[in-house]
Order: sequence, then structure tokens, then C-alpha cells
Amino acid sequence: MTSPAQEGLAVGIDLGGTQVRAALVDGSGQVLARAAQRTDAVGGPYAVLQQIQQLVAETTQGMAYRDLRGVGVSAPGPLDAQAGVILGIPTLAGWVDVPLVAWLQQALGLPVTLENDGIAAAIGEWRFGAGRGLSDFVYVTVSTGIGGGVIADGRVLRGRGQLAGHIGHMTIAPDGAVCSCGNPGCWEAQASGTALGQIARQRAASTPGSLLAAYGETLSAREVMAAARTGDTLALELVEHEAHLLGIGIVNLLHLYSPQTVVVGGGVAQGFDLLQPGIDQHVRTRALPPFRCVPVVAAQLGQNSGLVGAASLVLAQEAHRPLAHALPA
Amino acid sequence: MTSPAQEGLAVGIDLGGTQVRAALVDGSGQVLARAAQRTDAVGGPYAVLQQIQQLVAETTQGMAYRDLRGVGVSAPGPLDAQAGVILGIPTLAGWVDVPLVAWLQQALGLPVTLENDGIAAAIGEWRFGAGRGLSDFVYVTVSTGIGGGVIADGRVLRGRGQLAGHIGHMTIAPDGAVCSCGNPGCWEAQASGTALGQIARQRAASTPGSLLAAYGETLSAREVMAAARTGDTLALELVEHEAHLLGIGIVNLLHLYSPQTVVVGGGVAQGFDLLQPGIDQHVRTRALPPFRCVPVVAAQLGQNSGLVGAASLVLAQEAHRPLAHALPA
Repeated sequence: MTSPAQEGLAVGIDLGGTQVRAALVDGSGQVLARAAQRTDAVGGPYAVLQQIQQLVAETTQGMAYRDLRGVGVSAPGPLDAQAGVILGIPTLAGWVDVPLVAWLQQALGLPVTLENDGIAAAIGEWRFGAGRGLSDFVYVTVSTGIGGGVIADGRVLRGRGQLAGHIGHMTIAPDGAVCSCGNPGCWEAQASGTALGQIARQRAASTPGSLLAAYGETLSAREVMAAARTGDTLALELVEHEAHLLGIGIVNLLHLYSPQTVVVGGGVAQGFDLLQPGIDQHVRTRALPPFRCVPVVAAQLGQNSGLVGAASLVLAQEAHRPLAHALPA
Repeated sequence: MTSPAQEGLAVGIDLGGTQVRAALVDGSGQVLARAAQRTDAVGGPYAVLQQIQQLVAETTQGMAYRDLRGVGVSAPGPLDAQAGVILGIPTLAGWVDVPLVAWLQQALGLPVTLENDGIAAAIGEWRFGAGRGLSDFVYVTVSTGIGGGVIADGRVLRGRGQLAGHIGHMTIAPDGAVCSCGNPGCWEAQASGTALGQIARQRAASTPGSLLAAYGETLSAREVMAAARTGDTLALELVEHEAHLLGIGIVNLLHLYSPQTVVVGGGVAQGFDLLQPGIDQHVRTRALPPFRCVPVVAAQLGQNSGLVGAASLVLAQEAHRPLAHALPA
């Protein structure tokens, strides 16, 4: 009998607008080595391809590539996971219709799999984190924006063009703040870490007694969470408001997908213990009765959900591949 | 080779708060006979069971029951489709934990299947209507409330407790009108036929020049649609506003489920030709670019989506049964 760790090794890559991160992951989801570089945002896809090659080499030092199952890449969308093509990354120059999987397979001589970052993180939590053993759960990442992935009836929910689960662009307040997508009222525009930072800067400017007033334009969600832990009144108010806004969207997710659990990750989730009472209160009072018992919990893999999920794509490929019939019409 | 019509006959039952309707349906989705009774809302479940027996007899006159594949029942939730038990129908007295499938099977000596009304209608449109051949679509019914059913990746989306797809209770305006569920801002409370009637009565009371002013307290969504067809200014304004509100919710459904098509049924959909331009405009301007091309169309089976869908549950049972692993946790 083999232990999970002996089932194989894979490298997970998290291609983000700020950093490219890599981790060597074993079959039990353990991270054995990691490395990161600042993303070359202006050099074009080929420069980033070289960064990925360097990171794979760095995390597998002393190993032969033949001992790897392959490389799984998590990237922002829109992308075609099945074709292995990134259709566009707005924050990176020149990333239009990039056949990343074909390029990397040729460069590395290894199987390569591509997945949307929200879904990769959901898969990471599903296999090795807070979603283990569940057939229905929603992963929500709250950081610069709000994204996520949905596991429903024991499978990744894909939809047309594998585009299901754009949860951050659910309108929750039609007259609310305008989103980066151009629409007013998206959940992301109200409740992301970016939005929390903006509201905090406005409020702090007129609240000189708060710890937050000292930060000026550098004030972000991180400082709000830290100040709330010291009992700062404004910070606690901001956290309560953030929990309320997260609660509105999470209750919608309960009604729409009926998960057994909602798992919250991303930067803001580092303050999840502060947010959870307000979110729970919202769920217990605003969800329809059959949904009120559904737990909302923090991601267990922290910042590694996406890296581990990406690696697991090649460790257990058959279970997670997009479905042929779910391609764009 | 058999024709679709020769695949069998079944009776579909649509158990509603106002009417119990029945239809004899063939394997191609054609309605061969129909009957209806006003629901005995105070006599308790056993009185309604007798009504269903009468309706089955009426729609199958001259046939032997052995020529039927069975009876499919569409009912409002919450219900446990797999166990065949209605957990509760708030508008009917005494409907708590009613084992309807077991009762009816014993009374009729036929296979009986139970399904949530939104999902039954979605299945009707999927097999025989506007959703034919699609792997991903959302059925939305807009009448007294807003409900629906979701087909995703070629299957009915179930979720925990088979409760996915409570689309009417998605919050779209946290400060909006209070819903029958008690929460402010549900889509249903803003955009159902009931909500349209309420707004119309308020507006008509202060608009004596409108055709709508004559109806007083009897004014409903139906009269608004009729007056809009004659060019009444207030009615056209109300229709435009209704299309806007439907558009907000439908764009959310696109982002969340990524259907290939959204199918709109229910009473308000009888004015779908009037609503469609406004809905389409909303989708083309407010959906994220990859979702803007998704069509929003009227249900093809009209008021029969649920009846035909319910019948089809026993005509092709294997494809549509709830999944064992999707039971409540």
C-alpha cells in the first residue's frame, strides 16, 4: 500500500498580476518547497514563461523532472482550461490568446494543466482543506477583488465556456459603488479588500482619534484588521460593515448554489476571526430557514489554496478536467 | 423503431396553491388531455390526494392505468424529491412531512415521482421546449413570486438538500422592498408579478390620465401588460422598469451559473415580447463581455412547462433523479 505522499509530486504555479509563485506539492497536499518572483508584467508572455521555468527548476532542485507528475498552473481568467489557452489577462501586457499549456509542455517535457485561479483554489480546499469530503461547497476569495469556485453535486461547476462562478460580479446594490468592470453595485466593488481600504481611507480622514488616521493614503484592509484587534472603534465599525457586505453576498451564494459549507480565503480572510461573527449573524437572520445552519469557515490552506489546487490538477487529473460538453456554444 | 410518442404516456400533476392541474403527456411532450380543480387549501393533504386521483382518472378516461408509465408531481417546496416527501407548503393547511409519493403509489398502483416546481418546469423546457439540446441553462418563472431551476454541465443542479436555485431570494437591493420571506431586497420582492402589480397600483393612483387608473385595487401585472400594448405611457414606463429589474437578476444568473440560454416563463412572461428589449439591453451593457451574447428567451411550453416536466420525470426517470450524495448533510 502506498501513502498519499507517495502518490506523486507536482509543481503548482500561481500566476498572478503581482507575483508568480511556485510550490512543490506531494500527493497529500503538503508543500515541500516554494519560490516566487515578481511577475514581469511588461515583458510579455514569453518573459513570464521563462520565469515559470526558473521557478519549476528552483522548487525541484536535486530532482529529475521525470520524478514529477507534471505542472499545474492557476491563472486569472478569462481562459480556456480545456484548450490550455489564456484568453486574456488585463493586468499583464500582451497576454491575449496565449497557448500556455502547449508552450510549457514543450519547454519542460512534462504534462501541464491550466485552471482558472478561483477554481484551482476551490479544488485545493476540496482535496486538502476545508472542503474535504464535501460534495457541495463554494470557495470565496476576498482580496484585491472577489472571486471563487463552486463544487456542486460532487463536481466542479463549469457552465458555458467554463465561466460559471463569477461571484464577484453579482450585483448586490444597483446604486452602489462602481466596479472595475464598469457596473455599479458588484459585490466585488462593495466588499473586496480594495473596497474596504477605500472606505477606510475616507472614514479615517475624518476620524483623527482613530489609529487608522495615521496611515493616510497607505491605509489598506490589512491595517484595518490590525487596528480592530487593538479595539480601535473605527476599525471595529469598518470590520462590522465589511462582515455585513460579505454576508449579503454569502447568503445569495447559499440560496443559489446550496453548498454544505462556504469557505472564505484571500487576503481579507486573514482577519476571518474578526469577520465571522458578523457573517454568521447575517446568515442566521437573512438566509431562508433551511440554509441558516450552513457554516461559513476560513480556508485551511491560507495563501496556498491555489498553489496546492493547481498542483493537484496533475496529481489527480481525471477527477477535475473540464467537461467536453461544457465548451462555449 | 419507435416514435417518441410511442415511448409511453404519463400524467403530470402541477400542485399549486390555487389550482391542481393535470395533463396526459406523451413521449414527445405533447399534451393529449388536461384537467384542473381549485386546490382544496383547507381540507388537508388527504383531500388534495383525492383531487389528484380524480384528475388522473379524468385525463386518462378510456385508458387502463397499466398503459401509463406513471405520474409525475410538481409541487412547491421545500420538499425531498428523493424521499418523495413534501416537507411543507405554507399556503396549504396541514401540509407538513407528507409522504405524497408513497400515498399516491398505493392509491394508483403506478410509479410516482415528485419534483420541486421550478426544477420540474426547467426539465420540461429542457426536454421539450426552449432548452432542448443545451447542457447549461437557467429557467426563471416570474409570477406570484420568482422561482426557477438550473441545468448545469448537462445535469440538474441540486446542491445540499436539493435546495440549489432559490433564485428569487437573491438580494439585489439591500434597501429595497421587503420580501414575503422577511428580508429586504430579494429579487422576488422587486420584480415578481406581485411586485409589478403593487408598484402599478401606487403609480396609477396618482396618474389619472392612464388607462391603469380605472382598475383601482384590482390592477395587476396582467392589466399593465395589456395597457402597454395600447401604448399607455405609464404602463410602458412600468414595463421598462420591470425589464430593468429582471435584467439585474438575469445578469447575476449569467455570472453565477454561465448558462447558454436563460428561459423565462410564468405569468409575467406572457408579456415577454414587451420585456425582452429592456432585458436584452441590460444584458448587453451590464454583463461581463463573455456573457453579453447569451440569449434570454421565452419559455416555449408556456403554462405547461411544469406539467410536461413533471410527466417527463416518469417518462425518462433515470436521467433526472436527484443524486444520493446531494442529500442534506
